[in-house]
Order: sequence, then C-alpha cells, then structure tokens
Amino acid sequence: MPPLSVTVLGLGPMGRALAGAFLDAGVRTTVWNRTPGREGDLVERGAVLAGSAEEAVAAAALTVICLVNYDATDSVLRRPEVTDALKGRTVVNLSADTPERARDTGVWAAEHGIGYLDGAIMTPTPSIGTPAGVFLHSGPEPLYREHRAVLDALDGVHTHLGEDIGRAAAYDVALLDIFWTSMTGYVHALALARAEGISARELAPFAAGIGAILPPLFEEWADDVDSGSYTGEGNPLTSAVSTMSHVVHAAEAHGIDASVMRAAEALAVRAVDRGHGAEGFTRVTQIVEAS
Amino acid sequence: MPPLSVTVLGLGPMGRALAGAFLDAGVRTTVWNRTPGREGDLVERGAVLAGSAEEAVAAAALTVICLVNYDATDSVLRRPEVTDALKGRTVVNLSADTPERARDTGVWAAEHGIGYLDGAIMTPTPSIGTPAGVFLHSGPEPLYREHRAVLDALDGVHTHLGEDIGRAAAYDVALLDIFWTSMTGYVHALALARAEGISARELAPFAAGIGAILPPLFEEWADDVDSGSYTGEGNPLTSAVSTMSHVVHAAEAHGIDASVMRAAEALAVRAVDRGHGAEGFTRVTQIVEAS
Ligand SMILES: NC(=O)c1ccc[n+]([C@@H]2O[C@H](COP(=O)([O-])OP(=O)(O)OC[C@H]3O[C@@H](n4cnc5c(N)ncnc54)[C@H](OP(=O)(O)O)[C@@H]3O)[C@@H](O)[C@H]2O)c1
Ligand SMILES: NC(=O)c1ccc[n+]([C@@H]2O[C@H](COP(=O)([O-])OP(=O)(O)OC[C@H]3O[C@@H](n4cnc5c(N)ncnc54)[C@H](OP(=O)(O)O)[C@@H]3O)[C@@H](O)[C@H]2O)c1
Repeated sequence: MPPLSVTVLGLGPMGRALAGAFLDAGVRTTVWNRTPGREGDLVERGAVLAGSAEEAVAAAALTVICLVNYDATDSVLRRPEVTDALKGRTVVNLSADTPERARDTGVWAAEHGIGYLDGAIMTPTPSIGTPAGVFLHSGPEPLYREHRAVLDALDGVHTHLGEDIGRAAAYDVALLDIFWTSMTGYVHALALARAEGISARELAPFAAGIGAILPPLFEEWADDVDSGSYTGEGNPLTSAVSTMSHVVHAAEAHGIDASVMRAAEALAVRAVDRGHGAEGFTRVTQIVEAS
Repeated sequence: MPPLSVTVLGLGPMGRALAGAFLDAGVRTTVWNRTPGREGDLVERGAVLAGSAEEAVAAAALTVICLVNYDATDSVLRRPEVTDALKGRTVVNLSADTPERARDTGVWAAEHGIGYLDGAIMTPTPSIGTPAGVFLHSGPEPLYREHRAVLDALDGVHTHLGEDIGRAAAYDVALLDIFWTSMTGYVHALALARAEGISARELAPFAAGIGAILPPLFEEWADDVDSGSYTGEGNPLTSAVSTMSHVVHAAEAHGIDASVMRAAEALAVRAVDRGHGAEGFTRVTQIVEAS
C-alpha cells in the first residue's frame, strides 16, 4: 500500500493543527493558504507547500479544507482552475457553516464530478491529533469509507451521521449554539465577579463545577423535550426567572451590559406568561420555536 | 451532646430536599411553609410541622430559610413576631438573590440581634444529602464555625468564602449567570436540532461532549482575563463571530427566535469593531464592562 496522502487548504489555527497531525501520523501532506507565510514550521516538519490551490488539490486524492466559512471555501473551490483540478477527487469540508450551505456545496460538487463529504470539528486545536478530538461527518457512506484511513490519521473520535450532506453542519450549528452561548455566559460572569472583587482565578473552580453539572442535566432535559413533558418538578420556571433577574440586576447595578441575560430572561418570562410557570425550563425550547 | 436540631423555612423543591437530608442525617427538624400542604412525606419521616413561622424559628437555635428570593424571605423574617422570635438565634439564608440584598439583610439582622449567615446552593435538588452537593457560605467566621455541624449534616462540599456577607451571593449570581445562559443555549440548540430532524436524544451525547470541554476552557480563559492578555491564538474573535452568525442564520431560516445569540454576537462584533478581532473571546469580558 502506498503511503497515505492528503492536501490541507487553509492554515488558520485549525488548518495548521490538522496539517501538523497528518504529518505526525506519517501522512504525505501538501498545504496551501490564501495568505502566504502562515505555514509556520509545517514545511520543516515535512509538508509540501503548494504555490496555488489548484496545484495543492492536484497533489492528493483527498483535500481537507478548513477556512473561516463557506464564503471563503467557495472563493477557493469554485475558482474554475481549482474546480477542474478537483474533478474525480474528493473534498472534505471541515469549515463551519450552516446546513444549507453544506447542501448547496454538495449540489455544486455533484455537478462537477467531485466527491464531497461535509464535516465539523467539535473540539479546540490542542485536541487535534489526540484521542480527545471530536469530528462529525456526513455525506455518501462509500466515499466516507474510502477516505476513513486518512481521516483516522487525525486520531480522535469520528462519527458519520448519515448520507444527508447537511447533517454534520446541522449538529455543528446546534453544538456551537451551546458552546458560544455558554462561553458568553462565562465571560459575562467573569465581568460580574470582577465587579464584586472576585478574580477569574477565584471563580474558575466553581465555574468548572457548574460546567460539570451540565452534561447530566443535558441528558435529563433531552428526554423531557423529546417526550414533550417539560416537567419542572425539581426547578420550576418561576424560580429560574427569579434567579435570571438577579443576574440582570446585579450586572446592571455595576454598569455591566446584561443584554444576553435580558434576552434569555425574556424567553423564560414568555413561557411563564403563557401559563407554563410550574413547568421546567425545557419549555423554552417550544417558546423559541413558536416565536 | 444533645442531638442537633434545625428549622427549615420554605418547602419548595429545594426546601423539601434540605429538610429531607437533615432528617436522614438524624437532625431534629422543624418545618414550615407559607402555603400549607407542601410538606409531602416529611412529617412521616419525623419532621415537626410548625403552625407558624414564629413557632418554627423558636424550635431551634439555627433556622435555614430557602425561598424563591429575598422579597419572599423579607416577608417572612421581617414580620415582627418572627423577628422577635429570632433574637439571639441564627439564620442561614440559602435563597438566591443579589449581593446587595444579602448585605441589606445582614444589616437588618445585626440591628435585631440576630446571627446571620448568607449562603447559596450551586447544585440541583438530587445532590442534597449526597457528596455532590455544593454550598457556598459567607458571613462571620465564628458563627459559621458554631453551626457547621448542622450544615455538614447536609453532606456535600461547604465553602466559607469570607466575612463579607454578600460574597456567597456574588459568587451565586456569577455562577447562575453561567448556568442559565448555558441552559438557554442548550434548549435553543434542541429547537434548532429538532428543526433539522435531529432529536434531543440524538444531540444529547454530543451536547454532553461540549459540556465536557467547558471546564478546562474556563480554567484557561480565567488566566487570560486576570492577566489582561486576551490571547486568541487558538481561536480568534473573528472566527467566533463567524460561527455565531451561522447559528443565527440557521435558527432564523427555521423561524426560530435567535434573540439570545443575536445579543451574544453583538458583543463579539463590538469587540471586533474596536480592533480586537485577532484576540480571544475573553476580550468580551471587557466589552460588557465598558458598555
Ligand atoms: N480554532 C478552533 O478551536 C476551532 C474548533 C473547531 C472548529 N473550528 C473551525 O475551523 C475553521 C477554521 O478555523 P481557524 O481556527 O483555523 O480560524 P478562522 O479564522 O476561522 O479561519 C482562518 C482561515 O480562513 C481563511 N480565510 C478567511 N477568509 C478567507 C477567504 N475569503 N478566502 C480564503 N481563505 C480565507 C484564512 O486564510 P488567511 O490566512 O489568508 O486569512 C485562514 O486559513 C472555522 O470554520 C472554525 O469554526 C475551529
Ligand atoms: N431547585 C433547585 O434545583 C435549586 C438549586 C439551587 C438553588 N436553588 C434555590 O433555592 C431557592 C428555593 O428554590 P426551590 O427550588 O425550592 O423553588 P422556588 O420556586 O424558587 O421557591 C419556592 C419556595 O418559595 C416560597 N415563596 C415564594 N414566594 C413567597 C412569599 N412571597 N412568601 C413566602 N414564601 C414564598 C414558596 O412558598 P409557597 O409554597 O407558599 O409558594 C416555596 O417555599 C431558590 O432561591 C432557588 O434559586 C434551587
């Protein structure tokens, strides 16, 4: 068997992490980035730096692209020279965007005889090349099987979510929704703590404790939403609204912007106003749907 | 030594959990709730049901009160008959509210010769009476030491944060900020997933995976904020803004309210507009402070 090879388009923090992990795994790796000079030590570590995107994609049967979004990937992949060079080859798009954009790219790829898999990375750059990496994939199963060996070189856990090319992006937006909303809550909490004379270092272990109670609650609440029971036995919505208002008041008393918690509180209040006060916070799932 | 005894005011889900844990630990427990009939099986399990709040607080040297907020605790504790009965005794207020309200209650207690400790519970009802419970306390250290044995009967981890009576509530609002913002992100993600044909059960394990990456990031970001470095090496703000906009677009394409993510995105955009695009998301801590 010839050695595995891959092309990586995009050398932002994530593209560099991907290329580095491929090199560490002994995969022949060709790299390219729109702005030159972003390749860091990748060439010393064995990467081939291509002079153009078309030259890069021609160097391997599989191209992994990881740019900021699909406007960016379109501007690279849909340039005629690149599209031509990709014919008969496969692209795995690990850039984040909406399911709609992934499906649209699937149509474009089919029209040009390009194999197309969509994907998403759910863990930060230091996880790449370690067992902690989490990768979601969707698209034609045979194509996924064909290129699995290269993808597996990245280590981590890879899940193929189905043939619908938009499915990985659908999971991705939902999971990024959790991630960025939570992180916004965290950086806001750090501002609120600081105003109360509590350093980030002092708050962090307790914040980590909150982080630790989330996964079991996520599991519990999932059943509540799927079954439509929205039970609030352990914690009624009225109680949630009350504590959310404390956050708003405490923040604004210190002149801290509370727009995010205000928006969250408004959703919970809407649920209470519709007569769901004794139910659980999961009822908000239905409130945002019926807005 | 006489057996430990305690009074619990408030028999919502949390008050019932506290009273049940005291009973399980063999503490003589007197209970009272504004609305009668909320005591469930506590009397069968050995609790004494008092006919009034003043009768209840007279039954033990320590009263634990756990109501929805401080408007509620004021309406109970500041009734003259109850205030009189509390003279020379101690109250631990485990209701959630702002640091300001806790400090105000501290002043009231001092004026009436009542020992006062403030506290907050950071874990859900099933954790009470188990090692998983997390309790924060603040107020006079000697008073805390005097009543520790009763509080320890609740099991769990108890931390005394200092003599400033508002400190437990300050931690509480900051931690509830993280909790409710994250939970809002989660229920919103469930709506978005459902619109994409993904059940809560299917998303939950991946959501739990996101939950699992939060605590180490909380730790990492804490140093970034305390040092004022706001580095975004692994993930620049521009990249965050891009993925946040995908969440907004994907949600709104399905008619789902995206007000919370829109508010969060606006903060990140403000940071980019002020020239911090290459920095980390932690910069948003400063943006909300300077709003
Ligand atoms: N970093 C993480 O922790 C992480 C985790 C999970 C997923 N992701 C996802 O991975 C993807 C890449 O992220 P990243 O961290 O590497 O940083 P990023 O800032 O999202 O993306 C930077 C890359 O996008 C390229 N790019 C931007 N606009 C372009 C355009 N119009 N045409 C061509 N290239 C363009 C940049 O090229 P130039 O150098 O020429 O600007 C660079 O290669 C994103 O979708 C992100 O959501 C990242
Ligand atoms: N449940 C949890 O998982 C959890 C976790 C951590 C912290 N906490 C905190 O624990 C506290 C209690 O929460 P909870 O879950 O038991 O439910 P809750 O709905 O927040 O509080 C219910 C209790 O408040 C009483 N109450 C409300 N308004 C009152 C008033 N004006 N006067 C007198 N009593 C009044 C209720 O009495 P009636 O029965 O007469 O209405 C009941 O005893 C809250 O501050 C909450 O934030 C709860």
